[in-house]
Amino acid sequence: MPENTKIPRATLKRLPLYYRFVSILKSKGIDRVNSKAISEALQIDSATIRRDFSYFGELGKKGYGYNVDSMLEFFKSELSESDEIKIAIVGVGNLGRALLTYNFSIHDEMTITEAFDVREHIVGEEIGNVVVKHSDEIKSAVEAEDIDVVILTTPEKVAQQVVNQLVKAGIKGILNFTPSRVKTPQDVQVHHIDFGIELQSLLFFMKNYSK
Amino acid sequence: MPENTKIPRATLKRLPLYYRFVSILKSKGIDRVNSKAISEALQIDSATIRRDFSYFGELGKKGYGYNVDSMLEFFKSELSESDEIKIAIVGVGNLGRALLTYNFSIHDEMTITEAFDVREHIVGEEIGNVVVKHSDEIKSAVEAEDIDVVILTTPEKVAQQVVNQLVKAGIKGILNFTPSRVKTPQDVQVHHIDFGIELQSLLFFMKNYSK
Repeated sequence: MPENTKIPRATLKRLPLYYRFVSILKSKGIDRVNSKAISEALQIDSATIRRDFSYFGELGKKGYGYNVDSMLEFFKSELSESDEIKIAIVGVGNLGRALLTYNFSIHDEMTITEAFDVREHIVGEEIGNVVVKHSDEIKSAVEAEDIDVVILTTPEKVAQQVVNQLVKAGIKGILNFTPSRVKTPQDVQVHHIDFGIELQSLLFFMKNYSK
Repeated sequence: MPENTKIPRATLKRLPLYYRFVSILKSKGIDRVNSKAISEALQIDSATIRRDFSYFGELGKKGYGYNVDSMLEFFKSELSESDEIKIAIVGVGNLGRALLTYNFSIHDEMTITEAFDVREHIVGEEIGNVVVKHSDEIKSAVEAEDIDVVILTTPEKVAQQVVNQLVKAGIKGILNFTPSRVKTPQDVQVHHIDFGIELQSLLFFMKNYSK
């Protein structure tokens, strides 16, 4: 695959599923898997899997299935250039606190290394293994390469303002837990976890598929 | 639309987006909208929108666009038979606590009415407006129709066991915040919010689309 070929968005959305499945295979001591087995486990059709995997480089000889170690190496390389993924939490309210002690499981290399808040009485507090800093220090933390990605758990009404500050500091990825549909430049990725929307979606499915 | 026609899963997944968009229109005092405007706002093609809306019943005269009030009424009816949606939280750890005071926004009718834990020192504690009960009381709460849906925030290792208990009590919908891929009978809907997977997905997009 040429260096600059982007993996299509639809393929990227399936990458975490593949990564998890292959991690499970590895833990079971399995070293090869074919597209049919992946297809059955993940309920994605084989043709889609073969097309997706064609973007992942050389992962095994034709007819022998994909090599589990090569796949794991590839997925890891797609997560980050560095070995450790450094996460900062901005907004240390109830949800921020819960995430600071949350076990993000699966990947040892994901660590919450920083937490920021603007409220003086929270700055300096130690939660999990992290001491809360003032949000004014975000820029210097980014410059020191101490942050790869930010989890945003501020109040909704300041979300856009904080995001503007993060973008200015050089942050390229935000996991937004606020209901605010924040805007960023095109080179900054924002993914959104909206508990209200998820709950609604569940209720729609219950109404239509639980009978 | 006949009573028993199920809305297709792909359409259901888009329902929360439609609901939110139409709620915004209503708040702006707009009373009609056509598929082209919805298409542009949500970046879904018009043909898909027209097909989706064909499942939603009579929502306006042909050529005049869809009626905003009729749509809101329909979406609300698809959420629940009753006016209020009663949510129980099972597992009052850090995340459970955070969700008990979380504002699920958009929909006033969604309320956390119950919280359960097995740990005696937490039972009886008041968090938000809810007094934590012992998990043994789940069954009687379901029978008293005090719970429509459960948010699962227990430790991962007991998730399946708690889900079995919930299913036995008659729960038909679970929003699972544990990393455990819990199994349920077909008539019980489980939606999964996995922070680790969401974070991974963000990193994959950063690597491929932030340059």
